[in-house]
Amino acid sequence: MTAPVAPSASAVSDPLRLATIGAGRIGSHHAEIIARHIPGAALSAVVDPIAGAAERLAAELGVPHATTDPDEVLGRADIDGVLITAPARCHTDLVVAAAAAGKHIFVEKPMAVTPADADRAIGAADEAGVVLQVGFNRRFAPGFAAARAAIVEGRAGTPHLLRSLTRDPGPFTADPARIPRWTIFLETLIHDFDTVCWLNPGATPVSVHATADALIRPDAKATGHLDTAVVTIRFDNGAIATTEASFSASYGYDVRAEVFGSAGMVTAGDARSTDMTFYGADGIHVDTARRDTELLRAAYTAELTAFTAAIRHRTPAPVTGHDARRALAVALAAIRSVETARPVDLAEVTT
Amino acid sequence: MTAPVAPSASAVSDPLRLATIGAGRIGSHHAEIIARHIPGAALSAVVDPIAGAAERLAAELGVPHATTDPDEVLGRADIDGVLITAPARCHTDLVVAAAAAGKHIFVEKPMAVTPADADRAIGAADEAGVVLQVGFNRRFAPGFAAARAAIVEGRAGTPHLLRSLTRDPGPFTADPARIPRWTIFLETLIHDFDTVCWLNPGATPVSVHATADALIRPDAKATGHLDTAVVTIRFDNGAIATTEASFSASYGYDVRAEVFGSAGMVTAGDARSTDMTFYGADGIHVDTARRDTELLRAAYTAELTAFTAAIRHRTPAPVTGHDARRALAVALAAIRSVETARPVDLAEVTT
Amino acid sequence: MTAPVAPSASAVSDPLRLATIGAGRIGSHHAEIIARHIPGAALSAVVDPIAGAAERLAAELGVPHATTDPDEVLGRADIDGVLITAPARCHTDLVVAAAAAGKHIFVEKPMAVTPADADRAIGAADEAGVVLQVGFNRRFAPGFAAARAAIVEGRAGTPHLLRSLTRDPGPFTADPARIPRWTIFLETLIHDFDTVCWLNPGATPVSVHATADALIRPDAKATGHLDTAVVTIRFDNGAIATTEASFSASYGYDVRAEVFGSAGMVTAGDARSTDMTFYGADGIHVDTARRDTELLRAAYTAELTAFTAAIRHRTPAPVTGHDARRALAVALAAIRSVETARPVDLAEVTT
Amino acid sequence: MTAPVAPSASAVSDPLRLATIGAGRIGSHHAEIIARHIPGAALSAVVDPIAGAAERLAAELGVPHATTDPDEVLGRADIDGVLITAPARCHTDLVVAAAAAGKHIFVEKPMAVTPADADRAIGAADEAGVVLQVGFNRRFAPGFAAARAAIVEGRAGTPHLLRSLTRDPGPFTADPARIPRWTIFLETLIHDFDTVCWLNPGATPVSVHATADALIRPDAKATGHLDTAVVTIRFDNGAIATTEASFSASYGYDVRAEVFGSAGMVTAGDARSTDMTFYGADGIHVDTARRDTELLRAAYTAELTAFTAAIRHRTPAPVTGHDARRALAVALAAIRSVETARPVDLAEVTT
Repeated sequence: MTAPVAPSASAVSDPLRLATIGAGRIGSHHAEIIARHIPGAALSAVVDPIAGAAERLAAELGVPHATTDPDEVLGRADIDGVLITAPARCHTDLVVAAAAAGKHIFVEKPMAVTPADADRAIGAADEAGVVLQVGFNRRFAPGFAAARAAIVEGRAGTPHLLRSLTRDPGPFTADPARIPRWTIFLETLIHDFDTVCWLNPGATPVSVHATADALIRPDAKATGHLDTAVVTIRFDNGAIATTEASFSASYGYDVRAEVFGSAGMVTAGDARSTDMTFYGADGIHVDTARRDTELLRAAYTAELTAFTAAIRHRTPAPVTGHDARRALAVALAAIRSVETARPVDLAEVTT
Repeated sequence: MTAPVAPSASAVSDPLRLATIGAGRIGSHHAEIIARHIPGAALSAVVDPIAGAAERLAAELGVPHATTDPDEVLGRADIDGVLITAPARCHTDLVVAAAAAGKHIFVEKPMAVTPADADRAIGAADEAGVVLQVGFNRRFAPGFAAARAAIVEGRAGTPHLLRSLTRDPGPFTADPARIPRWTIFLETLIHDFDTVCWLNPGATPVSVHATADALIRPDAKATGHLDTAVVTIRFDNGAIATTEASFSASYGYDVRAEVFGSAGMVTAGDARSTDMTFYGADGIHVDTARRDTELLRAAYTAELTAFTAAIRHRTPAPVTGHDARRALAVALAAIRSVETARPVDLAEVTT
Repeated sequence: MTAPVAPSASAVSDPLRLATIGAGRIGSHHAEIIARHIPGAALSAVVDPIAGAAERLAAELGVPHATTDPDEVLGRADIDGVLITAPARCHTDLVVAAAAAGKHIFVEKPMAVTPADADRAIGAADEAGVVLQVGFNRRFAPGFAAARAAIVEGRAGTPHLLRSLTRDPGPFTADPARIPRWTIFLETLIHDFDTVCWLNPGATPVSVHATADALIRPDAKATGHLDTAVVTIRFDNGAIATTEASFSASYGYDVRAEVFGSAGMVTAGDARSTDMTFYGADGIHVDTARRDTELLRAAYTAELTAFTAAIRHRTPAPVTGHDARRALAVALAAIRSVETARPVDLAEVTT
Repeated sequence: MTAPVAPSASAVSDPLRLATIGAGRIGSHHAEIIARHIPGAALSAVVDPIAGAAERLAAELGVPHATTDPDEVLGRADIDGVLITAPARCHTDLVVAAAAAGKHIFVEKPMAVTPADADRAIGAADEAGVVLQVGFNRRFAPGFAAARAAIVEGRAGTPHLLRSLTRDPGPFTADPARIPRWTIFLETLIHDFDTVCWLNPGATPVSVHATADALIRPDAKATGHLDTAVVTIRFDNGAIATTEASFSASYGYDVRAEVFGSAGMVTAGDARSTDMTFYGADGIHVDTARRDTELLRAAYTAELTAFTAAIRHRTPAPVTGHDARRALAVALAAIRSVETARPVDLAEVTT
């Protein structure tokens, strides 16, 4: 049997017709960007298994096609690509199905939660010849992109110490019982694992030590919930990276990186929301961004713009399945490190 | 004869069809925003009197209609509105013509260079019932908008001292002989005149003192070129505003405001281009924005989004012809102050 | 009759013995610095005309000699120098008397309030061969000193636009009726007049335009009180300086400078009190300095250290009587500008 | 035998007479502060075993007594206290000897390099009833002190994540062969170990994981030199601290802390040296501090001022021998973690 052939450049309909699979918070955000803010792209369909969810989002964005069935969308010949923003556990199967249908794929992180699934997703996209891009949004934030550029230019020399952190805005209001045990590693820190790899070009992570706890909701620890974590990563070029995450930053959304190298240091990320500063009787005050969709608005738009450009120009995805697999390996090593209370070599979890 | 009636809300074609008159630097920038970044808006035509200019821009943006004749566009029934980005001296006549044709109007500053022309433009738009918005972009920069919000909320109390500045990026490479004598007031500081009025809500400027010189190109002073200016403005609530401009900031584009009031101070504007910071052997380094279209990118998009929203929702323009007339009066008083080397009451130039 | 000869280098007692004339707020602060924080200097006497004031300060600092009579101190052969921190109107007479007694002199600003008095003070010190240093403290603040160094090195090119401001911490609680009419110019902005002259090396101020009002205490305007002022100064190298002052900054003490030149911009001054930053539910918060003696602590210590060094090493004072005279001329021109509501040439007030 | 009784408050000579034991880089710096900048303190003697070193420093500071023999100084009845700034391996014996002689003691970190020695030092000072203060300078830096105050006030809630780092200024020019193998832990990170304990009041460190390498001088690794390290510390209140150090920061001296808690975040430390900012053709530039004695000047003065105040007022030292013992335990655990490549409980190294 022959793999479906992805639409050739010339065959790409104009505008690009995309569908979103998953109409939750981030899915809705991506959908709105595609529908309204990416020139040359159109949102043609919305899929969500929850009855009514796709309809509501489609109505809001003026999208003609809403359904609970992904196959309905994957079967449409006029759809060029899909955004997969479903729950993490469904990502790989959806990637494989979309690739089999010849659709270009933007998949939210984590692309997969096992190395085998990561390989399956990568293989499916390769075989189908479709673009497969993973949602590591930091890479598209202007400050992070400038940091990477400075490092690639050699301005910081060889990286020795790296840091990346993610702190979700608080107060924490989720139900810990509904958060899968390893979410802080697989869904949150996975961003930071990618960031430190990406900011240490050419190096490979070799071992990991993780510490994690339930500090925001200590009562939830018994059921396996972890809300605070620090992961130290050793690279084959000697660099030592520290990544950390918390599910409740009182002051808003906070995403930062720091690379200290032999010739200099680069930092990126700033919690302030605008360049307005207020000076009052209590001192100096600066507003912060309270949501990722505010702090990383430009990054979300840029990553989807890059996705459509990769489709249109047949260029490689700027964030690949291999990048996702690498970050996953770090996450799995971190999880095993927590389980065993010792450092873990990546070789243990990837073979 | 009855004035043409502007398209009613229900009659507005979907998407809004806009034309740009003037395909120069800022006209091209606006055109690209309309064509690619304003959901629900389409660029339907490009006009420029220079042979080939409109064609080039239209081709780049995939716009079907390019012409040297504004009337061709104003005569099209399917065009909802126009962006007037022609040379300043042509603005009023184009506003009047566009209004007469029933088109909604976004006009770059200055809308007019005489009070009579300002009145003529305002009257024409009023009579036609069209939206007339003026390009005071600062109001849409996130930091400036937050500053205004803080002031309106009363956080700074009553304004006592205000500051607004514009410094164009250097090095200065223009031919001073081709810059009209009072450009620094009519085209550059007019932004700052509007800013200090807008940040001092409810107050009216009453007198002006200006100092100006040719410091960047002293050789050009003989021909009337002024490249550096400071204007002090007195308001009827006692507030004193200082505005300043230079045509050559070595470090890039610089636009800032400061409002000091009885209860606090608000500042807005920051020359840095991203939140990346580099630390090297020479100290700490931060990149700056080298162009207005980079520093004010979000503002340019927001003002055009606001324009399309005003058309669609039949709401008042967020920057009106009266705002333009007020800023013009300050500019004319500043010019007279330079000519007479004394403070000038606004009453002298507006009656 | 021969002028008393100032103590020769070898004759300077070790430690330097200084007396302070004036035990008010700033006098007490200087006294404490001399007594405790200048190695090689000792505070030997305190003078204040108010009964008990000198005694209290002397007791607090362990100084053996307290008196209401300056002549008692000027007559002591073992006193090397005096700090004159009396009310402004007394400064010149005290300078002249101290010089006549052969004492080195540190005098708070303003050294004099008329050009004739300024000349008298300068002449007396010259004749006596004593050090005469004026209390323009900004010059010794680390950021301001670094700004001046950058300008002297030419990093900013030729200055085109300068700014200096002083905002006293609020809320304003003084009795306006007890503040002399022109205090904002003679005692507050005189700092800024010196700052912009000092940051524009080699240039001479030529004309001044001032605007001032009672905005903090409008009720006090009838009695001549002015609490808010903006002064624009033109220099013979074309540079335009803006200086401003307010008597009530809700957020604390604020002293800043900005020099924009042909090759770059230098800024100095920062209202924050430490490098601690707090991020909380309301956003980012930074503490400010509430008093000059906190914000400018290092500057106050450095200027008195420089004074003792000038005495010990027989080097010129780092801030001279001529500097004071120049700043005074600007202040007098500003006052006349307010009185006449027009720009005033410095020649009008200095000849 | 009765322990010597420390001088009673009334017996403390006025000024306090102090001696410094160790005239190296930091010893000379402390000596200069005592000699010139601490009111009420005098430097009465300098000790250094290297022939001529004490004489040179004593001559520079006008100190009458220089010697190679500490006993000469400890035997002087008129000496109130000593600063011990000798090599680390000598600290404990000198503390014990000074205590035995009834001298108050300021000892540079590390006070001891074994728990037994730490106990010996603490015991000797307790028995003698003398002040024993350890040189953890960060606690006296204004920003760090403000951070601690904010935490003690509860503004940040319960600490969850802490960070402290020390980066010595580069380029690294020392001879790695002359640096003891564990210096990065015992002499550098010991500051950070104290900082994170101090910023997590009431909590106790329980386990440590360390990673270290020779990245600046890989050639020196064979001889045991480590120049880069990251240490993760777990506390009994659940908080996770990350500390890191490097011996070569190209951009200068860098000391920072961050405490993220349930209610907010506090940061302290800033590499910039003044509030001057330069804007030029290459962007924005800020100068950095190149030496600890520049960046931490205020802290060094404040810690010695606090030491003299503790002596004079018979108050407890602000940094105690127990603080030193706690930081040492973390350092020893970090060393064992590097040796064993696993996390280490503090109980393993302290019992």
